[in-house]
Amino acid sequence: MIRVGIAGFGNIGRGVEAAVTAAADMTLAGVFTRREPKSIVTASGARVYSYGEAAEHAQEVDVMVMCGGSKSDLPAQTPQFAKYFNVVDSFDTHANIPAHFAAVDAAARMGERTAVISAGWDPGLFSIARVYGEAALPQGESYTFWGRGVSQGHSDAVRRIEGVADARQYTIPSQEAMAAVRAGKRPVLTVRDRHTRLVYVVAKPGADKEGIQKQIVGMENYFDEYDTTVVFITAEEMAREHSALPHGGFVMRSGDTRSGEHLVEYSLKLASNPEFTGGVLAACARAAVRLNAEGRTGAFTMPEIAPCYLLPIDRAELLSRLI
Amino acid sequence: MIRVGIAGFGNIGRGVEAAVTAAADMTLAGVFTRREPKSIVTASGARVYSYGEAAEHAQEVDVMVMCGGSKSDLPAQTPQFAKYFNVVDSFDTHANIPAHFAAVDAAARMGERTAVISAGWDPGLFSIARVYGEAALPQGESYTFWGRGVSQGHSDAVRRIEGVADARQYTIPSQEAMAAVRAGKRPVLTVRDRHTRLVYVVAKPGADKEGIQKQIVGMENYFDEYDTTVVFITAEEMAREHSALPHGGFVMRSGDTRSGEHLVEYSLKLASNPEFTGGVLAACARAAVRLNAEGRTGAFTMPEIAPCYLLPIDRAELLSRLI
Repeated sequence: MIRVGIAGFGNIGRGVEAAVTAAADMTLAGVFTRREPKSIVTASGARVYSYGEAAEHAQEVDVMVMCGGSKSDLPAQTPQFAKYFNVVDSFDTHANIPAHFAAVDAAARMGERTAVISAGWDPGLFSIARVYGEAALPQGESYTFWGRGVSQGHSDAVRRIEGVADARQYTIPSQEAMAAVRAGKRPVLTVRDRHTRLVYVVAKPGADKEGIQKQIVGMENYFDEYDTTVVFITAEEMAREHSALPHGGFVMRSGDTRSGEHLVEYSLKLASNPEFTGGVLAACARAAVRLNAEGRTGAFTMPEIAPCYLLPIDRAELLSRLI
Repeated sequence: MIRVGIAGFGNIGRGVEAAVTAAADMTLAGVFTRREPKSIVTASGARVYSYGEAAEHAQEVDVMVMCGGSKSDLPAQTPQFAKYFNVVDSFDTHANIPAHFAAVDAAARMGERTAVISAGWDPGLFSIARVYGEAALPQGESYTFWGRGVSQGHSDAVRRIEGVADARQYTIPSQEAMAAVRAGKRPVLTVRDRHTRLVYVVAKPGADKEGIQKQIVGMENYFDEYDTTVVFITAEEMAREHSALPHGGFVMRSGDTRSGEHLVEYSLKLASNPEFTGGVLAACARAAVRLNAEGRTGAFTMPEIAPCYLLPIDRAELLSRLI
């Protein structure tokens, strides 16, 4: 049994908990939190420890899944934990991935541990789809579209606007852009061409709705480059219609050989972003433990790991059932 | 530069030739054939040798791509060549893959060579999609659909019927079955539910068309379990409308977590089956050479190879551009 720890217990941590509990080859060794441990109830009944005492439990944990945020938690936490634990994280700030990789790799090598960084679906499964697409069709273009799904970062940004009680932002891929890619046209697409944004807002009583709408649509780095639609709804509607966290997306590779155009398409349609991500992270935890057992220490991203390491099956079963 | 040899020069061999010629890190060392070498003209101008003298060229070839047929060529050829060469093949007789793996693995280990077997898109990229789908969504069902595309085996079977001058068989996936899978219904599908077959036939003058139609529809192992449509056309129509070898297919994984149903879908739409397959085999040739350089000898299937081995890029480029 692979003993899995979870560091940080938000939505993704709960998704990992569910996946580990369901896996026949894994057991949950404990949850580590910066909150008061007694304030947290785990669905599985797993024990909750304070974050600061994690290192003391190094002998009881085969792999730690780091479930903090990419902005302020993982850049410090993953390298720190990689000295004592095999680790998996879902670091997703694309521009900083090379620096994060270097920091985690150095720490993991020092501790002779194995780390899988930037795991999940994008980065993660979508990175893998981009690699295979380019390998099969070197002459071509790759396209990534996200949605329809809830962007937590954009939802949070809207919630910070004065007069906003609650908000939910959906990223929506352009059907026209996707159709052009699928038709082999290899379109050159601007940011505005690829996605639109749809924001549901619950305004506080007496708030200036027109002002809120203008602030959202013009918000730099979040909305100004997109066509954004703002819809005001009631708190009841928000609770009833928008409490789930669906997401998904598409990776397409359009490429040609002598006889014409080929298309490779990989897509996800997810009922719950954090629950699906939790499942991928749990599979990567299995891979981290196996790589470490083979003496392969240091940091890896998902495209650097053979797919079969993610599954609890041997070669005989792989050959007979999945090839 | 990776020096690639091609053993067997039919449609797939020509696809590999085109892919190797287009790759900046590869050069074509030669084509090996059981036909008269002088009778073969390569598009690239690469030299053509007789099959029997392949071993004499072992020092000039870093990896040999085996392009014979799965039925009568590869079971003997791949183990034989794996003693002297790193090899790649596209062996696709599913039931015999474990035995083929064992034979190639033993030969490759003896010669300290690396072999990638059953490469291409199914088995190959579709095997990989099945592995990742099951890893991300352990509670679920996987479905594979093929087409719309030309099945060479079924076309050949029809051509052997008396009175048939030419034939082309298209495998067509059921839109209803795919819709049910995408809707998360996890249908139980019979062979007949999944695909239909469409056969274009050019009859010889005076042939018994009704008899031909009956023989096709009832042919055991090929058509009897399917709903099959037979359409008689002229030789001119066959040449004009059906000279290409398009293919494709879909791998779907439908699975659930607490919040509901998720769908992972991987699909290919190929202008030319052998040209696309040739591109995948060329990428696997690159992987075989790299694995061998790391001392990893023996046989591998595609899900046992890290995706990044297929691409001619280093980790820095992987992290900055594709993750």
